[in-house]
Amino acid sequence: MLVNHKDLNFLLYDVFDAKGLTQYSHYREHDQSTFDGVIDTATHIAQTYFAPHNSKADEHEPQFDGETVSTIPEVKEAWQHYAKAGLLNASQSFEDGGMQLPTMIHSACSGLFTSANPGTAGYMFLTTAAANVIHAFGNEDQKNRFLPGMYSGRFAGTMALTEPDVGSSLGDLSTKAIPQSDGSYNLKGQKMFISGGDQDITENIVHLVLARVEGAVEGVKGISLFITPKYLVDENGESGARNDVKLVGLLHKMGYRGTTSTVLNFGEDDHCTAYLIGEEGKGLSYMFKMMNEARIGVGLGAAMIGYRGYLESLEYAKNRPQGRKPSQKEKDSKPVNIIEHADVKRMLLAQKSYTEGSLALCLFASRLVDESEAGDSLKEQDRQDSGILLDLLTPVVKSFPSYYGVKANDLAIQVLAGSGYIREYPVEQCYRDNRLNPIHEGTHGIQSLDLLGRKLWMNNGKGLKLLMARVQSTLKNCQAHDALTPLVASYQQKINIFAQTTLLLGQNLQVGKVDETLANSALYLDMMGKIVVAWLWLEMADKAITCFSSSESEDDKHFLAGKLQACKYFIEWELGEISSQSKLLSELNSTCADMQVNWF
Amino acid sequence: MLVNHKDLNFLLYDVFDAKGLTQYSHYREHDQSTFDGVIDTATHIAQTYFAPHNSKADEHEPQFDGETVSTIPEVKEAWQHYAKAGLLNASQSFEDGGMQLPTMIHSACSGLFTSANPGTAGYMFLTTAAANVIHAFGNEDQKNRFLPGMYSGRFAGTMALTEPDVGSSLGDLSTKAIPQSDGSYNLKGQKMFISGGDQDITENIVHLVLARVEGAVEGVKGISLFITPKYLVDENGESGARNDVKLVGLLHKMGYRGTTSTVLNFGEDDHCTAYLIGEEGKGLSYMFKMMNEARIGVGLGAAMIGYRGYLESLEYAKNRPQGRKPSQKEKDSKPVNIIEHADVKRMLLAQKSYTEGSLALCLFASRLVDESEAGDSLKEQDRQDSGILLDLLTPVVKSFPSYYGVKANDLAIQVLAGSGYIREYPVEQCYRDNRLNPIHEGTHGIQSLDLLGRKLWMNNGKGLKLLMARVQSTLKNCQAHDALTPLVASYQQKINIFAQTTLLLGQNLQVGKVDETLANSALYLDMMGKIVVAWLWLEMADKAITCFSSSESEDDKHFLAGKLQACKYFIEWELGEISSQSKLLSELNSTCADMQVNWF
Repeated sequence: MLVNHKDLNFLLYDVFDAKGLTQYSHYREHDQSTFDGVIDTATHIAQTYFAPHNSKADEHEPQFDGETVSTIPEVKEAWQHYAKAGLLNASQSFEDGGMQLPTMIHSACSGLFTSANPGTAGYMFLTTAAANVIHAFGNEDQKNRFLPGMYSGRFAGTMALTEPDVGSSLGDLSTKAIPQSDGSYNLKGQKMFISGGDQDITENIVHLVLARVEGAVEGVKGISLFITPKYLVDENGESGARNDVKLVGLLHKMGYRGTTSTVLNFGEDDHCTAYLIGEEGKGLSYMFKMMNEARIGVGLGAAMIGYRGYLESLEYAKNRPQGRKPSQKEKDSKPVNIIEHADVKRMLLAQKSYTEGSLALCLFASRLVDESEAGDSLKEQDRQDSGILLDLLTPVVKSFPSYYGVKANDLAIQVLAGSGYIREYPVEQCYRDNRLNPIHEGTHGIQSLDLLGRKLWMNNGKGLKLLMARVQSTLKNCQAHDALTPLVASYQQKINIFAQTTLLLGQNLQVGKVDETLANSALYLDMMGKIVVAWLWLEMADKAITCFSSSESEDDKHFLAGKLQACKYFIEWELGEISSQSKLLSELNSTCADMQVNWF
Repeated sequence: MLVNHKDLNFLLYDVFDAKGLTQYSHYREHDQSTFDGVIDTATHIAQTYFAPHNSKADEHEPQFDGETVSTIPEVKEAWQHYAKAGLLNASQSFEDGGMQLPTMIHSACSGLFTSANPGTAGYMFLTTAAANVIHAFGNEDQKNRFLPGMYSGRFAGTMALTEPDVGSSLGDLSTKAIPQSDGSYNLKGQKMFISGGDQDITENIVHLVLARVEGAVEGVKGISLFITPKYLVDENGESGARNDVKLVGLLHKMGYRGTTSTVLNFGEDDHCTAYLIGEEGKGLSYMFKMMNEARIGVGLGAAMIGYRGYLESLEYAKNRPQGRKPSQKEKDSKPVNIIEHADVKRMLLAQKSYTEGSLALCLFASRLVDESEAGDSLKEQDRQDSGILLDLLTPVVKSFPSYYGVKANDLAIQVLAGSGYIREYPVEQCYRDNRLNPIHEGTHGIQSLDLLGRKLWMNNGKGLKLLMARVQSTLKNCQAHDALTPLVASYQQKINIFAQTTLLLGQNLQVGKVDETLANSALYLDMMGKIVVAWLWLEMADKAITCFSSSESEDDKHFLAGKLQACKYFIEWELGEISSQSKLLSELNSTCADMQVNWF
């Protein structure tokens, strides 16, 4: 099973009101049945063409013989079915040949593919994201040349940022772009960790490359963005001669092995043709369009790999008899299924709370994308507010699921124990695959600096005010349910601590204690992640109670009772650390920062 | 580097007084120079014959063609050098051909091999442990037949407990032993997850198999222990005809790939000859001799794989320039080495505190083994006390390093980021290898039940009293140092919480609330692990301050300052959760236990 569809429906329709999206003019052609139709199609393709080769693609990772890369044939087949179903450009408008699908529904679909096979799905997601950048910032000629191929699946896309000596410090990148007389550029440089940088799945690959036009200023303001195809493309969108983009080699990952990770040389023979997107020096801001999408995508992927592991370990625990309860001393007693053991319940409940909470977070972020792009259907102010809240939450959306998704997969292994550790069962691959997510598209450390050093204080701290207003509204709704009273009280206490800590840190930044305040930013990111996800759990609990009275089947009632219990678990068990985290943050604890290099 | 030798020497000689062991009559032939000599030899062999094929053995795991298993030739070569150096039986007495080496020194050596190559070292450790059981409980004939081969490296050993349908619930195992007229037994059954269960390294393999003599009572009291060689062995210790032990297949692990993990059929053709060790029905108690050793070994292995990852990430962080401090805004500033970033320091300091703390814990446990076996050199009461304290701590020694070792490896990956995730760097293998340790020789869950359900209350709770007395003595010493005053105060508060929680849980058990009290035992295990390791950090800090004044080199002073800072980190950053854990434990929080199967 790729997801608990009861849960997905609950999140989409009961918690985040997907039907409400159809009131926006852009989505007015849709209704719940078209949403469900796309999700059904995605489920079918994911189950039929993605899930079956997930393990095989891991065992038989792409090979490079010095000339070409070869992947197992199932990957190409999956790609073709995905493209044919119109999923590469599902979010694009009808006039651009898309389905004009809300981001929230598109995310639900994407999640199914990651759950089925994150390695193969990687190629699709990168292509969609790259096409979105060209669509948003490319000129008409560029759109005409590249987008039809990317939408139809003839071309794939990549993002080529990282360089070997530079890593995440993009301001220091050194790939050069030399202007040519015909308006194009010649690129020269090396890029590393480029996912999908080469493969044998598509006719062509369109790299979006960050580079520095010769003579540009140092730092991030000198960075521009270039379209650099593997094969040159004519004005009719047909691939032609080979461009000077050379695969140096493949990198061999611990997981996510199905997606190639490459080192690419641009312009080794001095004739790598590239096309500037938009204006010189604005490359990073364009790339951040892709990056922000990618960050939500990483969070979603992490949530879903976590989710998949949870479902696998749940299935195992339900069917594996072993041991007895501590109080069961009778000699002739039969072993119970391990799901009866309290500690196994704990491990399952923790996974449930992390992964369903993470999925809720990512769907919420996707809804914010839809709201912020809703055009005239929403008041300008509301659109802006959704955008501001999304900006604030992006580091959390990227990081919480990444960290807790791996933790969930770790628990899934532990539930299966010996069986969980061997490749004959699927959970160890989930664990390996998911471990990429706290790294790519900006590590935890980078997200935490972005959050505490920047995002919180943009627009005069409006994002946080908007978050708090949403939280208060949820708490108010929860107060109508007696069952939630103790949880609301407990959460209220934690969020007060969080708010006070945030205020204090802001004051310290204002008086110039920048390094001291940001030293422990990773702790802040974790604290805020828990606060946000606990809020979403209360939101789910409120909706679960509301749905309970009208639910018709026993199954539904059990599902809703489980939501309540997971909310209880998350607030009682996972928020305990907030007090001690707040203490370290508030006192600007300098134990880590004070550690000297030669003391290690 | 396999370990920081400055640290190893500090632990052995300054913290745990290895020289003091030479005052026991059993070790009186030794002095520091013989200890150092063995450690030097081990270091040399580990670096020369183990470390170089660690990655190769991972990439080329053992193959089974249906007839025989093949491992890469380097494993056999390593085995031979290890055996030739007398390390398989280093702890045995001189008269038995051993070195009469204290367990603490032997552990230090073993740790070096795990750091270098846990997969290959697995074969050695299992053999030594199996030989120890035969030495302790076998009859003269059994010792004569099997031990010379196992000591010299012609035979390897295994422990065969787990069965496919039974897992850790040993009382339910069903392998049968049918008495034969010659006093031997015929075995019949299947065992799973048997490490080293087949290989092409040694001439013979001696399996220690748990089985049930036909007609034995149900449950653990019906379990006996059998020597079951792959090839029958005559009274001169020579291998002869093939026994009916058949390799069904290899299991394919996420890590630890160098050690075969096997499914074995005993008696498929009804002629599997086995020899009863000691008395019928006492199999589990004999096996626990091996198991308790193995549990300390698992803790030590986990500590050392964590340690290795720490050293690798430290090296990387010292040499990788990237990014700037948040306050560094000058355009022409040069990137700093990432070790200068506070968050990287945090990740390194956390690793240091987990892994050096874990190593200290395992060496301490090893010293307790030596004390408990010190014979007349120690008062009967002191020997008993050391044994009781060791019993209490064994679940912690097994679990803390396993959990925090993986956590350390996770941080090592994060320090290297993209590079940490690829197999071109060593830390991802550490992470995969180490993930076995929270599983084998009893999962976390099982250790926690053993601790809270049994170990704490044995001998009228004497173990805990002994622990507390040791802690108080350390705290008293620490009070002599002003630098430690705030840490002592903070720790005192935590240990009071721990003591109160323990008392309360004991009372609940006494009034029969068994299931309720044990439901959250995993939380208790984690809490106690932190309490114990924090105590050892204070012990190290006290000794570091004492050594500081007499240390001659700047390097030594830096090292000692680092110990102090790591102690500070562990107490300030890692003990924060104890209050909330204590709350959940004390209220017998039932959120996990209450979760219903059909609510998931």
